[in-house]
Amino acid sequence: MFRNLMPRYEILSPDAVAVLDRGWRRIVTEIGVQFAKPEAVELFKAAGQSVEGDVVKLDPEFILEQIAKAPREFDVQARNPANSVHIGADQMAFGAVYGSPFIRDGEVRRDATLDDFRKLAMLSQSFSQIDSAGGVICEPNDAPLDSRHLDMVYALQTLTDKIYMGNVVSGPNAADTIKMTEILFGGRDAIETVPATISLINCNSPLRWDDRMLDAQFEYCAANQPVVLTPFLLMGAMSPVTIPAALTQQLAEALSGIALAQLIRPGCPVIFGSFLSNIDMQSGSPSFGTPESAIGLLCTGQLARYYGLPFRTGGGLTSSQSCDAQAAYESLMTLLPTFLAGTNWVMHAAGWLEGGLVSCYEKFIVDIELLRMLREQFTPLEIDEASLAFGAHEEVGHGGHFLGAEHTMERFRDCFYRPLLSSTANYERWLKLGGKDATARASGIVAKTLADYEQPPLDGAIRAELDDFVARRRAELGD
Amino acid sequence: MFRNLMPRYEILSPDAVAVLDRGWRRIVTEIGVQFAKPEAVELFKAAGQSVEGDVVKLDPEFILEQIAKAPREFDVQARNPANSVHIGADQMAFGAVYGSPFIRDGEVRRDATLDDFRKLAMLSQSFSQIDSAGGVICEPNDAPLDSRHLDMVYALQTLTDKIYMGNVVSGPNAADTIKMTEILFGGRDAIETVPATISLINCNSPLRWDDRMLDAQFEYCAANQPVVLTPFLLMGAMSPVTIPAALTQQLAEALSGIALAQLIRPGCPVIFGSFLSNIDMQSGSPSFGTPESAIGLLCTGQLARYYGLPFRTGGGLTSSQSCDAQAAYESLMTLLPTFLAGTNWVMHAAGWLEGGLVSCYEKFIVDIELLRMLREQFTPLEIDEASLAFGAHEEVGHGGHFLGAEHTMERFRDCFYRPLLSSTANYERWLKLGGKDATARASGIVAKTLADYEQPPLDGAIRAELDDFVARRRAELGD
Repeated sequence: MFRNLMPRYEILSPDAVAVLDRGWRRIVTEIGVQFAKPEAVELFKAAGQSVEGDVVKLDPEFILEQIAKAPREFDVQARNPANSVHIGADQMAFGAVYGSPFIRDGEVRRDATLDDFRKLAMLSQSFSQIDSAGGVICEPNDAPLDSRHLDMVYALQTLTDKIYMGNVVSGPNAADTIKMTEILFGGRDAIETVPATISLINCNSPLRWDDRMLDAQFEYCAANQPVVLTPFLLMGAMSPVTIPAALTQQLAEALSGIALAQLIRPGCPVIFGSFLSNIDMQSGSPSFGTPESAIGLLCTGQLARYYGLPFRTGGGLTSSQSCDAQAAYESLMTLLPTFLAGTNWVMHAAGWLEGGLVSCYEKFIVDIELLRMLREQFTPLEIDEASLAFGAHEEVGHGGHFLGAEHTMERFRDCFYRPLLSSTANYERWLKLGGKDATARASGIVAKTLADYEQPPLDGAIRAELDDFVARRRAELGD
Repeated sequence: MFRNLMPRYEILSPDAVAVLDRGWRRIVTEIGVQFAKPEAVELFKAAGQSVEGDVVKLDPEFILEQIAKAPREFDVQARNPANSVHIGADQMAFGAVYGSPFIRDGEVRRDATLDDFRKLAMLSQSFSQIDSAGGVICEPNDAPLDSRHLDMVYALQTLTDKIYMGNVVSGPNAADTIKMTEILFGGRDAIETVPATISLINCNSPLRWDDRMLDAQFEYCAANQPVVLTPFLLMGAMSPVTIPAALTQQLAEALSGIALAQLIRPGCPVIFGSFLSNIDMQSGSPSFGTPESAIGLLCTGQLARYYGLPFRTGGGLTSSQSCDAQAAYESLMTLLPTFLAGTNWVMHAAGWLEGGLVSCYEKFIVDIELLRMLREQFTPLEIDEASLAFGAHEEVGHGGHFLGAEHTMERFRDCFYRPLLSSTANYERWLKLGGKDATARASGIVAKTLADYEQPPLDGAIRAELDDFVARRRAELGD
């Protein structure tokens, strides 16, 4: 976790905020939001909202009343208390890539497996810049479809001692995640008091919340586990092509989802979600790390603060097919604004490639380096008389050098950022070391990190209970 | 040229600025600045400053009086008036890489030649994101040392119609640059009225201005041509290891150099220069694109505004030995803060590699892509009712898509950033196109750009006069 005490970079004028505020109000009032789950529609109806079939036309003031019930900040506990996180305020927490069916490992691109899932969980455990392996770090295609969620949650619970994300494929999958979380943390009360798993609920944008996602949301909200209500907006496909239009749609969708959460369980923790980029109108493919997404991200942060909600945006996003220069600059073009916006919950912070279709080992390391650098960069400078090192100037004088100065000698070990991946070796030495580019070096860091990985200890009784639960549920599911 | 109308990202509190302000005052008062040119020392002495040998101890109030004479903003004319630039205020102008002895062209790294110099000038001419090829885009090692500056200025004048930087190796080289500029622009009066060449004067940090650089500065300032007075600070070598110490030293050096410029010719245009990074204390090599340099860059912009001076910082800097992921992320880690700071004059904005030892063709294209993206990103959003596209929502409704919506169809050609280099092709199509990474694709863009290059027209009489001048001076110099 990282506390970002640098200024926020806000680019919306008060007038612009007012226009956007009127925008979402008009959408929820006149067009409404579709909820493909009768229980959701019933809740809104009972609360006095206008219902037409499964479309709810919402009173904006009602929405604001509901979101005011959501906590502005909250804790999520990890089984290692040192890894618990606080969501909101100045805090930033980071999860790894989520949802990729494929893996890139060096030059090879292939279907992801459960073994990849485990290795990516181990990498996530190994770097302090990552607060959570996330949920679906990659899709374990070789595990049986019906019980795959059990394998994933079990891996996250046993290979890491950090917070993890819950399965959202269905209501029963969510219920299984919650049961396993109860086992790990000592019962329902323990996790209702301090939540222990975050889940991603995506909107089927535009303006529709689907049944399976809502089933999962009902489970998690009822159990007081935080959900990230996330409009999934690729401008040009799921939203209009103008950023202001996408921002108002995002507000309409996220705020309506958050209102539902508060109807399910008033006061339950939520995160205002944003996943906002655009279609490449030439190729028809999604485009990431674009100027539009960076602008959208900065605006999202400002708007979430305006409505008093912790928020999710950003990550290390790229369209690139390999871990190349494009992958690096697009990812940083997203990650740096993620810090400028002071994002509270950052998904896809390490390992994302090819528009999210691929989890890439080498890219994971590139992103870790970016996170390391940005944490340093977003740490306020201490400026006082002592930091001016006037004595060093007196010692060195004109045209000399500071390499051997007393001030330098006292500080040389930790005065500057120390890279994990980047090389400053001179050309001859770099050649001698194999002339490896950053991606090739990252591959070596992956191998060493996995070799050095140590599984965090877990109480034997708890592990046995988890094993029993997984075995029983797997049998019930017929796998 | 680009007008940056986005907010500046300022991270120094008023208290911090006050501490830094006291810092440089103490340095110039108690330690003083060395000027290795008797005429410079004489000017300070005549102005009432305290002189000990070639060290001048300066009254900070005297320095502030001098820098108040410098224009806050000014024009630099190009021979194509459409390419003239304005330095200062909200304007940002960009020059290519400067000073590299080596070239990287694909997998080959070798000595740079005059042919490379010309090709890089042609690339600079071809991209509107670059306002100037700069000066020494690479070192033309195969041209005779004594007359090489003539070849470089001639290439810049004839292969581009943009502004160019002057030679600073010696006073006579500077005089030659000025003479050639007079020929191109129609005489001394024309360039004294509106300057036509910018020159880089580096400090031999700490606190020493060298004789040859000062010789060049005297020529350029006397001719009213702007100089960029640039402390050259790699923390740990040329300055102490703390950022505040480097910032105060930077102020002491730059402001003393600017004061000298105003003594040479009151009111002559200057740019507050900054080149601030650090040594990698492990390898002993310079390190670029570091968190420290990004922080220093943001502070430099704020301080330059505090003292009312146009400023230079940033660029696309990296330590990387190849055009890889590291090169991309380190460059953006410098370039994005360059925009956040609103830098007026940006050197090394395209083509820099390996700590500035290498000018790289492919990296040039990567940087052009970054500049294109950042210009888009730093263009304020227009937010009004029309931008909300409410009609598109009415048309599409819930769970539909906007690909065929009227609002989209009217705007799809130019609604989003269109990349030069980045690919969003799906994996199969990318493979079919050769599976080329960004660097390999950049290589193709270089070749196509050079093939499409058209030399800008130049009046025959002027060209003949330049030819004559170069031939005569080359003979005089014995080459």
